Amino acid sequence: MASTAGQVIRCKAAVAWEAGKPLVIEEVEVAPPQANEVRLKILFTSLCHTDVYFWEAKGQNPLFPRIYGHEAGGIVESVGEGVTDLKPGDHVLPVFTGECKECAHCKSEESNMCSLLRINTDRGVMLNDGKSRFSINGKPIYHFVGTSTFSEYTVVHVGCLAKINPLAPLDKVCVLSCGISTGLGATLNVAKPPKDSSVAVFGLGAVGLAAAEGARMAGASRIIGVDLNSGRFEEAKKFGVNEFVNPKDHKKPVHEVIAEMTDGGVDRSVECTGNVDAMISAFECVHDGWGVAVLVGVPHKDAVFKTHPVNLLNERTLKGTFFGNYKPRTDLPSVVEKYMNKELELEKFITHSVPFSEINKAFEYMLKGESLRCIIRMEE
Amino acid sequence: MASTAGQVIRCKAAVAWEAGKPLVIEEVEVAPPQANEVRLKILFTSLCHTDVYFWEAKGQNPLFPRIYGHEAGGIVESVGEGVTDLKPGDHVLPVFTGECKECAHCKSEESNMCSLLRINTDRGVMLNDGKSRFSINGKPIYHFVGTSTFSEYTVVHVGCLAKINPLAPLDKVCVLSCGISTGLGATLNVAKPPKDSSVAVFGLGAVGLAAAEGARMAGASRIIGVDLNSGRFEEAKKFGVNEFVNPKDHKKPVHEVIAEMTDGGVDRSVECTGNVDAMISAFECVHDGWGVAVLVGVPHKDAVFKTHPVNLLNERTLKGTFFGNYKPRTDLPSVVEKYMNKELELEKFITHSVPFSEINKAFEYMLKGESLRCIIRMEE
Repeated sequence: MASTAGQVIRCKAAVAWEAGKPLVIEEVEVAPPQANEVRLKILFTSLCHTDVYFWEAKGQNPLFPRIYGHEAGGIVESVGEGVTDLKPGDHVLPVFTGECKECAHCKSEESNMCSLLRINTDRGVMLNDGKSRFSINGKPIYHFVGTSTFSEYTVVHVGCLAKINPLAPLDKVCVLSCGISTGLGATLNVAKPPKDSSVAVFGLGAVGLAAAEGARMAGASRIIGVDLNSGRFEEAKKFGVNEFVNPKDHKKPVHEVIAEMTDGGVDRSVECTGNVDAMISAFECVHDGWGVAVLVGVPHKDAVFKTHPVNLLNERTLKGTFFGNYKPRTDLPSVVEKYMNKELELEKFITHSVPFSEINKAFEYMLKGESLRCIIRMEE
Repeated sequence: MASTAGQVIRCKAAVAWEAGKPLVIEEVEVAPPQANEVRLKILFTSLCHTDVYFWEAKGQNPLFPRIYGHEAGGIVESVGEGVTDLKPGDHVLPVFTGECKECAHCKSEESNMCSLLRINTDRGVMLNDGKSRFSINGKPIYHFVGTSTFSEYTVVHVGCLAKINPLAPLDKVCVLSCGISTGLGATLNVAKPPKDSSVAVFGLGAVGLAAAEGARMAGASRIIGVDLNSGRFEEAKKFGVNEFVNPKDHKKPVHEVIAEMTDGGVDRSVECTGNVDAMISAFECVHDGWGVAVLVGVPHKDAVFKTHPVNLLNERTLKGTFFGNYKPRTDLPSVVEKYMNKELELEKFITHSVPFSEINKAFEYMLKGESLRCIIRMEE
């Protein structure tokens, strides 16, 4: 691969030309990495709701043409000036948020909200020069959250790349770039359920199922799945969910239903829907004295979280998390190791797989609610 | 003292006959302790806002005649059946909430909200038989929060008594029965500010100053006092408060003022006013990524805590605490030791002292806002 270093690479990328219209596989030029940047070859990428959300561009500033994609596994092709942590051939997971290792957040043991490289969905260019590294016949194509993995080659800031075990299969661990780590970390890093505790998970999509997987790994004995679609309950059993509540089946508020099932409330809850009423229920269903509720789902911008302060004074804790509180570079390699040592099961999240040429099928599966994760094989 | 065991003791008590009317020192009969009860001689007691609040009986069910008082230090006179942890002569602090050591809360490492002995302000009798141990000419006088320390002798459930170092001066450590421990524990046990961190304390009454004292003990470098009364700032300096904000002096919301002072927010905040707007400010003034806000003040029953969920998703934590998360029997002895080894300074909380005969003066000092704690000397 050394022969391409420093040169423009021509390769295939799936370009979104317009909101909501099928992606088009185009030949693009990918410029060499600049200072603190890395160019990598993507081998596998997967589709996440966030790609679909910004591709639909309902409610955000539309930014087109753009290359989406932010869950992926790849191999470093070349590195820009000042990059010492990575070298060609290293296996990496690109991440939509970063870790500069220099800001107050990176220096804090508790935060992963890097000031420099925190997710910015409005930015379609690289930080270094405010320009795109992608072009077609000289016309720039925008980046997406600094990753743009729906391309055979992409350029990413070194702070947004986790160097992982080269033995890890990239077609599996690529799903750790976003949603799965978000749900898993919400439970393992933030809710921290003790062994034999009870955990309620609101929303049984991929993120919620990852939160349940975290509860299973932590040894929770009761994992209560909450979802408005009872059809999700059967699949959720694979992720350790062993009790189910569909709020539609009850006249009482769901937090009261859960409190009755658990003699006063669950020990932990994780909210993965983004619906503010579900957030409030997730908080109010935890036990007084020790209950911890963790919010993961992203709410509507006008949503207001409301509760009576006594629910807090009775020693409940309410927290939110971003990317499961994982620091991308520092922590993701160890999540990959959890998969390698069979503690974490990733196969069950991967319901579909398509060659790159059929990437639009991945969007269809997700829009129909059929898939958890669909892997896109770049080399086919 | 052994001679009085098993007998009714006649002694002086300050009886509240009516809401808001001065207490009257009366001769009362104090029955012997029943199963799991302890009769103790009170040597020193202090006045807390909660006594005044229920004595004024604005908004709660009035329960009179009643003997108030719940911050005190005393010596065990006799014990009822089944009491093995305490014996006559032991030095104790009575506490308005208890620790049965058997319920789910007591068995939890995190909770101090004992199911059996949790504060109950509506109950004016003992748990064992639903009757009072106090009477005047056979007419029962109600208890208050299981302590009723405005009496030379009182009867308390063994689960509401902390056995302490007999060398500790009861005229000082008696203030640890309630407010001071509540504020101190909110900081030390719940907010847990790291060394050299910043802490905002909302409300500079006794509880807030105790929260500041906790921040000082934890080694916080910036302790920002927030109060609508600038007159409180000078005294607060003794408690480690080294910066002050009076929200009235600013056009911007106070959480924005604090965020500007601290490059994005304080590391920890502790809310000790009970005003719901202060609670919201206390939460929104903590730094994203790692900030923790702790609610201590008791709100109006109709108050609603409101915030945008993104404030949580940006990795802020919101918690509430009851009695500073101290388990009365397990933890208070070690708080007394912190005073004994000069880590914790209690003298500065004690602004006044009166003989028992002048107990109504203690109420006047508090109502005028002149006192932090007024010690009532029972033997004078």
